[in-house]
Amino acid sequence: MNNNGKTSTPVTVIGLGLMGRSLAAAFLAAGHPTTVWNRTAAKAEGLVADGARLAPSVADAVKASPLTIICLTDYSAVNGLLADDALDLSGTTLLNLTSGDSAQAREAARWAEQRGVRYLDGAIMAVPPSIGTAEAVILHSGPQADFAAHEATLAALGTASYLGEDPGLASLYDVAGLAMMWSVLNAWLQGTAMLRTAGVDAVTYAGFARLMAAGVAEWLPGYAEQIDRGEFPAEVSALETDVRAMDHLIEESEALGVNAELPKLFKAMADRAIAAGHGGEQYPVLIEEFAKPGPA
Amino acid sequence: MNNNGKTSTPVTVIGLGLMGRSLAAAFLAAGHPTTVWNRTAAKAEGLVADGARLAPSVADAVKASPLTIICLTDYSAVNGLLADDALDLSGTTLLNLTSGDSAQAREAARWAEQRGVRYLDGAIMAVPPSIGTAEAVILHSGPQADFAAHEATLAALGTASYLGEDPGLASLYDVAGLAMMWSVLNAWLQGTAMLRTAGVDAVTYAGFARLMAAGVAEWLPGYAEQIDRGEFPAEVSALETDVRAMDHLIEESEALGVNAELPKLFKAMADRAIAAGHGGEQYPVLIEEFAKPGPA
Repeated sequence: MNNNGKTSTPVTVIGLGLMGRSLAAAFLAAGHPTTVWNRTAAKAEGLVADGARLAPSVADAVKASPLTIICLTDYSAVNGLLADDALDLSGTTLLNLTSGDSAQAREAARWAEQRGVRYLDGAIMAVPPSIGTAEAVILHSGPQADFAAHEATLAALGTASYLGEDPGLASLYDVAGLAMMWSVLNAWLQGTAMLRTAGVDAVTYAGFARLMAAGVAEWLPGYAEQIDRGEFPAEVSALETDVRAMDHLIEESEALGVNAELPKLFKAMADRAIAAGHGGEQYPVLIEEFAKPGPA
Repeated sequence: MNNNGKTSTPVTVIGLGLMGRSLAAAFLAAGHPTTVWNRTAAKAEGLVADGARLAPSVADAVKASPLTIICLTDYSAVNGLLADDALDLSGTTLLNLTSGDSAQAREAARWAEQRGVRYLDGAIMAVPPSIGTAEAVILHSGPQADFAAHEATLAALGTASYLGEDPGLASLYDVAGLAMMWSVLNAWLQGTAMLRTAGVDAVTYAGFARLMAAGVAEWLPGYAEQIDRGEFPAEVSALETDVRAMDHLIEESEALGVNAELPKLFKAMADRAIAAGHGGEQYPVLIEEFAKPGPA
């Protein structure tokens, strides 16, 4: 059971869309005996040519391996697949990498628990071409023992990260991470648009934006301590000072003819926190605005 | 003219608010003969006790040093200070660190050019307590020769960065950098609010958010090349795929009862780019939305 020094545990991949095929290909490349199944069998052709075994049924596929990865379009497809009461899932751990929200993940985990099925939920923070490289981060949540049992196998897909027992965590971290991604990209686009009015090209500004984003990222653990303590002393700057700089950003954006919606949202949320009496406190006090629905 | 191995060029600081006093103190600490002036002379007392010379007038202050730093409340205070036609500015370079927008910086530079005065504009990306440490980044724009002549002296204040000849650049980079700062902080707060609903404390989530922000920052130089080329092939992901994930983020935020305004703004701008025909292109194509005013 060894291949180039790697332990080659059998693994099953169900769902051979673009992502599912990348997952199966990464397992094959790492030397794992790989069983695949897809509603449309033709999608398996390339993988079979590379050494995968195409299972004749879902029941056969899940019996072939101690780890079954499910990667379908959505949770209703997953539910449809698993609805067959005769399906014997006792010999495998399901790892559901299908995109969905935390409520869907928790519901699937409850269903599995009721049936005595081992179930992990996961989220892929990567695009298909990066699967199999360390750059591909895959988040996992659910019973720690089930993750630990398959961690070595999952390393074939990329960087396998375990978040905790709550099966909804992978999905929550996933969308929270996307919020960070779009925020950094949007702030960079805002700055790029502003600097282009002065003839500065995007590559020149990107170096500055990169340092700024990475620098602010370093503050987060310290700022987070304020949130966990629930105390927000203005050690660096007070919110009422910050909003004056936000006004400058809005005015400058409008004067240059670039979009000011993002700066205006910064200001609207900070203004609400100040109206709630937090003007003398530090920025992380805005958690109170983020933790509740916005105005209708 | 040497003090602990440092060249101790005379320097003048005009305006002794919290920031101005920190600037003067940093020059004194670095061994520079430091002349100060403030409308209310009492603000100079601590600095004078530490070795600064309090000039009796602005005219005397600017004559004392080859470099005069101005740090006032706003540009109208600067204009008021310099309005005196009898003021002899021939022997000094003005470095205006007063907060303002790019139009004000360019106007001040034009005024200086007409009078044959050497003028640099700057922006302080730091809080007063960090002045004098490498962490304090100060941005400079204007004639490169004037910056080069005083770069060694300015190193006493922190990290002196030169951006280019256009005197508006320091102000533009400053507000663009602030947009990045608030974006990273807001995305982190969004994620923190979401994860807290699952009992994850802020410090635990901050480690993930920090890695995410720093990771996305690394993409910016590559994405910037797409903007400079004006071509946005979907090498990693297409905008029409991204908006489906934005919908997940919005739905998850609303289901958890946390604020969804930031995710909705992501989506609104992406939807507009898709409506303009860019759904098959990559995220940086949104520069076209950021480069123009938003809907009224």
